[in-house]
Amino acid sequence: MKRPGPTTTAMVWKVRGARPSQESDQLAAEEPMEIRVESGPKEQRETTSLSVTMRTPGHDFELAAGFLFTEGIVARKGDIARIEYCTDPGVTQEYNIVSAVLRPTVDFRADQLARHFYMTSSCGVCGKTALEAVRVAVRHPIPPDAPALDPKTIAAIPERLRKDQALFSETGGLHAAGLFDASGQLSSLREDVGRHNAVDKVVGEAFLSGRTPLAGTVLAVSGRSSFEILQKAAVAGIPFVIAVGAPSSLAVSIAEEFGMTLVGFARGDRFNIYAGAERIVKLAR
Amino acid sequence: MKRPGPTTTAMVWKVRGARPSQESDQLAAEEPMEIRVESGPKEQRETTSLSVTMRTPGHDFELAAGFLFTEGIVARKGDIARIEYCTDPGVTQEYNIVSAVLRPTVDFRADQLARHFYMTSSCGVCGKTALEAVRVAVRHPIPPDAPALDPKTIAAIPERLRKDQALFSETGGLHAAGLFDASGQLSSLREDVGRHNAVDKVVGEAFLSGRTPLAGTVLAVSGRSSFEILQKAAVAGIPFVIAVGAPSSLAVSIAEEFGMTLVGFARGDRFNIYAGAERIVKLAR
Repeated sequence: MKRPGPTTTAMVWKVRGARPSQESDQLAAEEPMEIRVESGPKEQRETTSLSVTMRTPGHDFELAAGFLFTEGIVARKGDIARIEYCTDPGVTQEYNIVSAVLRPTVDFRADQLARHFYMTSSCGVCGKTALEAVRVAVRHPIPPDAPALDPKTIAAIPERLRKDQALFSETGGLHAAGLFDASGQLSSLREDVGRHNAVDKVVGEAFLSGRTPLAGTVLAVSGRSSFEILQKAAVAGIPFVIAVGAPSSLAVSIAEEFGMTLVGFARGDRFNIYAGAERIVKLAR
Repeated sequence: MKRPGPTTTAMVWKVRGARPSQESDQLAAEEPMEIRVESGPKEQRETTSLSVTMRTPGHDFELAAGFLFTEGIVARKGDIARIEYCTDPGVTQEYNIVSAVLRPTVDFRADQLARHFYMTSSCGVCGKTALEAVRVAVRHPIPPDAPALDPKTIAAIPERLRKDQALFSETGGLHAAGLFDASGQLSSLREDVGRHNAVDKVVGEAFLSGRTPLAGTVLAVSGRSSFEILQKAAVAGIPFVIAVGAPSSLAVSIAEEFGMTLVGFARGDRFNIYAGAERIVKLAR
């Protein structure tokens, strides 16, 4: 089986007023990917299927690592011995099953998945239990002296994200997540049909190269900000999130709770600050 | 506890060039909601927690019913005896746990959840197993004589959806899903921070009023179309999906596989047809 790519080609009818024409077009690829974990002592290894996510193929190992890290399963690069595509006999290699092999010393419990906390909470789920689940997964609180950003730097970041979004310009169908430093330099950018996957991919890349926790960085996303995006940023120790779209109420609650700065509707020098305004230079004076 | 509403109010710093000002703003509310199912014969009732979804409060029973229907758990209104907020002693009423009480005659198996099929497939997950999972859940194949639409009708639908999206204009943070008839008349519209929830809400409303399968209807969504959106439409028997944004590769595959028409990038009289062009009047001649 050929390894799937991030885009596919399709014949499409384009209707423009009265004139329909049939043309070839690029689509954002979407395929399921299963994340498995192999854990336990040497003589008693166990394989657990943790999640199936619909994702755009590419950077699959970063996606798996980022997911395990932002969901609170692993804390540092050394927890993972290796990541590989599943090669079980009988499984056709479709590059859609990724196994993270944990070191025998790692204490793995599937119920550590942050999302499981509010699933199994006997007192009922609510925004508060969701925040509590994030708190359990956060190992690196945002330092109070996290760097401040200049409004000019904030204004330039969405434009830079947009420019570097190669696949979006082909397909119009992908979310982007980018990591920037406090001076507005882009360090990495990933795209995916799922915005949470795009975040897991950039965070996973940093995790696998030993750069987490990501104190002093800025996460920028091309769409809206939700609970899930802020949860992942909080667990990764990212103090600053900039979204081109609107935040949800729970995104703002997480930012407030964990001392993060959240910017939304970021369009050039016009943007809104929903939390952590003290970390924006002009306002901080 | 006050019942949560679809929006919340927050104080926000608005930066417009050099002049920041602090103003009150509306946010799209996001809260977890747990969906439970009570099933089994009279003397042996069982409660199963099926899912926790982050949703915008409002139309919660429609969301639960739509989820159970589009995931293949229930087939008709009569399968559900009643839907209620959880009132277990010890649970603080936060309006975030919804229980669907199935009639004792309904054969409930949690592993019927469409998404579980590709999670437990021993041969590995891929686009093909995902399509197979949808096939199992589809009880009402799209009839070959589903009505055709005029390009003028297609052109008018996104504008109508946009106009009726009340909460979006307040918050800028919500996805919309609308059900239309073949003449372009809107029958219902729902909004949510999760686009799959918006679809479950409109489908759930139709399900609870006994109008499913939805042959002869058009589903319009404010964003992109993905596997999940097309899966829900296919199971609900909706022949026609119009999205304002781009489709993913798997969205197109489902539309092709189940004989649906999929329109994307719908902006007035400019739109793309990704599948089922024969159901658009001018092209069908």
